[in-house]
Amino acid sequence: MTDLFAETRAAFDLPEGVIYLDGNSLGPLPRAAAARIARTVTEEWGAMLITAWNRAGWMEMPRRLGDRIGRLIGAAPGSVVLGDTLSIKVYQALAAALALRPGRRVILSDSGNFPTDLYMAEGLVKTLDAGHELRVVAPEDIAAAIDDDLAVLMLTEVDYRSGRRHDMAALTARAHAAGALAIWDLAHSAGALPVDLAGAGADFAVGCTYKYLNAGPGAPAFIYVAPALQEAAQPALSGWLGHAAPFAFDPAYRPGTGIERMRVGTPPVLQMAALDAALDIWDRVDMGAVRTRSVELTEAFIRGVEATCPELALVSPRDADRRGSQVSFRHPEGYAIIQALIARGVIGDFRAPDILRFGFTPLYTTAAEVEAAVARIAEVMSGRLWDRAEFRQRAAVT
Amino acid sequence: MTDLFAETRAAFDLPEGVIYLDGNSLGPLPRAAAARIARTVTEEWGAMLITAWNRAGWMEMPRRLGDRIGRLIGAAPGSVVLGDTLSIKVYQALAAALALRPGRRVILSDSGNFPTDLYMAEGLVKTLDAGHELRVVAPEDIAAAIDDDLAVLMLTEVDYRSGRRHDMAALTARAHAAGALAIWDLAHSAGALPVDLAGAGADFAVGCTYKYLNAGPGAPAFIYVAPALQEAAQPALSGWLGHAAPFAFDPAYRPGTGIERMRVGTPPVLQMAALDAALDIWDRVDMGAVRTRSVELTEAFIRGVEATCPELALVSPRDADRRGSQVSFRHPEGYAIIQALIARGVIGDFRAPDILRFGFTPLYTTAAEVEAAVARIAEVMSGRLWDRAEFRQRAAVT
Repeated sequence: MTDLFAETRAAFDLPEGVIYLDGNSLGPLPRAAAARIARTVTEEWGAMLITAWNRAGWMEMPRRLGDRIGRLIGAAPGSVVLGDTLSIKVYQALAAALALRPGRRVILSDSGNFPTDLYMAEGLVKTLDAGHELRVVAPEDIAAAIDDDLAVLMLTEVDYRSGRRHDMAALTARAHAAGALAIWDLAHSAGALPVDLAGAGADFAVGCTYKYLNAGPGAPAFIYVAPALQEAAQPALSGWLGHAAPFAFDPAYRPGTGIERMRVGTPPVLQMAALDAALDIWDRVDMGAVRTRSVELTEAFIRGVEATCPELALVSPRDADRRGSQVSFRHPEGYAIIQALIARGVIGDFRAPDILRFGFTPLYTTAAEVEAAVARIAEVMSGRLWDRAEFRQRAAVT
Repeated sequence: MTDLFAETRAAFDLPEGVIYLDGNSLGPLPRAAAARIARTVTEEWGAMLITAWNRAGWMEMPRRLGDRIGRLIGAAPGSVVLGDTLSIKVYQALAAALALRPGRRVILSDSGNFPTDLYMAEGLVKTLDAGHELRVVAPEDIAAAIDDDLAVLMLTEVDYRSGRRHDMAALTARAHAAGALAIWDLAHSAGALPVDLAGAGADFAVGCTYKYLNAGPGAPAFIYVAPALQEAAQPALSGWLGHAAPFAFDPAYRPGTGIERMRVGTPPVLQMAALDAALDIWDRVDMGAVRTRSVELTEAFIRGVEATCPELALVSPRDADRRGSQVSFRHPEGYAIIQALIARGVIGDFRAPDILRFGFTPLYTTAAEVEAAVARIAEVMSGRLWDRAEFRQRAAVT
């Protein structure tokens, strides 16, 4: 296993002297991606021009890449398709799910969900103007809040701030028992831990590919629809590439077969080329091995930081089974501390109001890096190295 | 002017021996784009990792590129933003427009609109389930169909099949006189002819960047909202990057200032890098010069084809003022003819059921190429060179 991860690490182009613990925000550059993108640019776009849609297989990529991701998240071939952003995919899944539960009006989510999921739901509720309610409770109150007026349970499996992980199978079963559908956001799950969408009985899932999957900035999102629901799910975002025959240019929309109907517009070919290269690395590993290593790394990190930095309070669950592949601590000066760490070559990130967040990505993060990161965090904390104006000055994006 | 276009042509990487008359479907590769993309991949994504969102200015790109496009379409700075696909932008514009005309239920469009515009409207009408009606009439009947029950007039300025051009200013004025709003799709206008959104009083506009703007396969779309409407327009697709303070991670959505609220999710950075390079070429030209040259090229093409190919019937308006930058002919064997032409190095495209479509793009199309294209079309037609099984076999994408 050590050899496997040495090999996967060598597949990334990581800057010298940097310990990158932010792959849960933006994964690093796979070495093969630069050449793959360049090939798409010059040999496909440049040389084949419009004919590349067929000759280079561009048109099939959203489905082909969906199947490659499907293997990592327990989704059968033909149940995942790429396209758009995660926000758009949330809207698409939620609109389809609500239409499948016409008599019900409640969408249940939690305050640990990533804001855009809640915002998109809020926008849909307002647009529908049909008396739907977005009910947001604390993560620990979700199970108790599932009742018979629920249309849809919409959750992110792993909390972007705390790393707390929901029990997808148990909550989905509970939603189903109440007659509701379940939508899972896998933003911090896909490539972070084993996911079994089919086994958990999830109805819809969405996710992004620029975090643990390493497909690059602005890489496309994906959507999963359970095979049993695919023919009943009606796309609200009924774009031409989800039409049964896009190039017939019919005046009326007719949804495509299965997952194809969840396509909308022209897919981002250059970003998909990067994703294709990034997924080559995933072909070599299985998620079980990644998870084992992830737990080792996060446990070592927690142990190290707690032993050396008493001012940092652990936010993530202590029980590895209850968290994803990140570890978060809390400190009122979290922003400045993260800036000081970045200046010393340890890249983590800050999430308002006071969270220091560190992602652990076995494909390229080593045990030695975790140890070194702990040492640098201890230096920054014990020496109050964060207490300088340059670190406390907030940038627009953090 | 000749020198100018010789210079712009040299800025493209065009394959040897090909006459490319399909830049209205996918523009060719700007030479500078390959290096620009490579720089974004290795020096920004690879070397700066997550910090590139600030350090490389990624977060500002949708707005900055929007302003660059704005110059070409008569839009003031701060009224155009990039993101998503054209289909999504149609939905976004239409949802916002309908919400601004709450007492009205009719969306008027025409049968020459690109299908995805009609499909997205159909999906929105079905999703709203509030009694809206998508009324589709023939393009020539639009003016007469504008009446006082109209909420929104939604048109594509230049017809993707015929190249027929609507009178944007006149129809917008008529829509306004009836109390309706006007949405213009500029897919075949931006970079094809002078557009004056502000002068025409357009309320919303949308467009893509992979056609005449040459930003590459799957390049992001753009949306324009008239400055006077920006604060009233409510985004149905209320994603986090359209929030007033995305990184505050507020639980409730609060729309951003002005055009910023029309952003949704994480923008496609690699595709935006390509667009940035493509727009450098546009900085050297003005749309008036492009239009003059475009008319010369299309007139020469029509003259040539009509003189040599009596079997091909002109579909585009004969009056240059009434068409965009493409010329279409009709023939029952249009598909096979286009395939035969592609095999002989003239790339145009086919649009069902019987349209042969040729785009003229002064930045790189020369008068000599138009002449040569006419000669090859004449050879194919007079020799019935299209009448071979290999040309009549339809591919999935055409």
